[in-house]
Amino acid sequence: MSKLLQKPVKLALIQLATTSSKPQNLSHAHSKVIEAAKAGAGIVVLPECFNSPYGVKYFDTYAERLTSKDSSESWRALSSMAKEAGVVLVGGSIPEREEEGGEGRLYNTSMVFSEKGELIGKHRKVHLFDIDIPGKISFHESDALSPGNKLTIIDAPGYGKIGLAICYDIRFPELAMIAARKGCFLLLYPGAFNLVTGEKHWELQARARAMDNQVYLGVCSPARDMEADYHAWGHSMVVDPNAEILDETDEKESIVYAELSGERIEEVRKGVPIYTQRRFDVYPDVSEGRVKYEE
Amino acid sequence: MSKLLQKPVKLALIQLATTSSKPQNLSHAHSKVIEAAKAGAGIVVLPECFNSPYGVKYFDTYAERLTSKDSSESWRALSSMAKEAGVVLVGGSIPEREEEGGEGRLYNTSMVFSEKGELIGKHRKVHLFDIDIPGKISFHESDALSPGNKLTIIDAPGYGKIGLAICYDIRFPELAMIAARKGCFLLLYPGAFNLVTGEKHWELQARARAMDNQVYLGVCSPARDMEADYHAWGHSMVVDPNAEILDETDEKESIVYAELSGERIEEVRKGVPIYTQRRFDVYPDVSEGRVKYEE
Repeated sequence: MSKLLQKPVKLALIQLATTSSKPQNLSHAHSKVIEAAKAGAGIVVLPECFNSPYGVKYFDTYAERLTSKDSSESWRALSSMAKEAGVVLVGGSIPEREEEGGEGRLYNTSMVFSEKGELIGKHRKVHLFDIDIPGKISFHESDALSPGNKLTIIDAPGYGKIGLAICYDIRFPELAMIAARKGCFLLLYPGAFNLVTGEKHWELQARARAMDNQVYLGVCSPARDMEADYHAWGHSMVVDPNAEILDETDEKESIVYAELSGERIEEVRKGVPIYTQRRFDVYPDVSEGRVKYEE
Repeated sequence: MSKLLQKPVKLALIQLATTSSKPQNLSHAHSKVIEAAKAGAGIVVLPECFNSPYGVKYFDTYAERLTSKDSSESWRALSSMAKEAGVVLVGGSIPEREEEGGEGRLYNTSMVFSEKGELIGKHRKVHLFDIDIPGKISFHESDALSPGNKLTIIDAPGYGKIGLAICYDIRFPELAMIAARKGCFLLLYPGAFNLVTGEKHWELQARARAMDNQVYLGVCSPARDMEADYHAWGHSMVVDPNAEILDETDEKESIVYAELSGERIEEVRKGVPIYTQRRFDVYPDVSEGRVKYEE
């Protein structure tokens, strides 16, 4: 069990202030990733839609084909900053345009890079953010985006497995249950909750997933911009395997740091040993059988 | 969906102060159940081990055979108070001794009675409370008890379906997921968390299960007694389908009330429609297939 995380690591969540300028966002992300690396971070996370405004009308304009490094400015930039910083970089998410020859679909996609700058994983948001709370918020991501069809587990060289999903995916506990049971030490959700759902459920979602699965968890939001169309909740935080918040920020730009250790996961699981107490003779194990995921 | 709860109902959770005298506990429970009914409650809940001290060494002494009304003093008392009060009564839990001819097993069992005093359901705690947090708490329920082997869904006449489990069962999200997906409007957990796990996880467990399943939820603890061997957390609470705490108490004896309505469940599910957005093409539905449960 101590093998879940091969060595202690400092996790950094960059609550980035984003603009409508992609080059500016990439350049700003670069400086913050370097800052996090200098502070000792080994795994660095950017927020959902970190290089564009968040909104149905923006996705097409900002979308990139992720066929190869050559087809994507953000791929090149993220690869380069991961290598320069020498960190595992979870590149928040960007709007992705489907490969040529497809139907022109768009996705909300996260790319992950190794310390060498190699793409080591990719997650397309599986659950699109379609909600309608009368008088409060209405948003229909599916007006512009198509959903991914796989769960994503990243093998982060030198560390271990990370379960990766995006924002609204967190509301579906199966992803976290499956990732944790498949051996992840950490769940990461680049995400942009809003002022309605953020206040109600952001912390609760983060702490619940960590508690139920006894893993570390990070939720990484963009900074709040009240001039933008969409007002992100902010409050990026790292939660430990016992559901304690290790570090959390407010709505402004900042970097949230936390030290993660395999021993802490082991200690929590030994104290409250739900991992050996589940009753798969009474109910099915969602991580067994027909699960579509990428490792 | 509005049919989940057939009519609005006031739920009462009795955070009972218990003693080591079973007759006194039954008599005291009676007076509190009548009090709750007079206050308008239609569904009334007692806490885990409401008629005995909570502890491995007490279970055998206080255990009753639940073969029939004649074999169990607590059955008779609960049936009678449900009928007198005219409420659906979830009788917390008591130590149960296996039917004659068995191996003398003991269970932690909840009995549920209709407004007519009929036994309409029974849950044997499926996940026994075996934890060991060094320097804080060590408890091994399985030293004395055997686990149940089924999930429990109660059909409460005039209201709808209720998912019932006991205390430590709440840490296993499958029970709540299955019960909610099978049409329950309410999840009830008579439970006695302690001063260590209570502070950390009692509210988080309650709110997480309600949020993820968009149902009402009640957790009903005994009152805290610092003279007893086991110190219950208290803090009985009712949570709404949006994870808001409707009413909560402290550690002392009291009754927690909340009004439940089917419309509220419908409203929450319409606003954040996770019920139609789950991706059972990507991961399995734990409520389908091989699930052992009683209805």
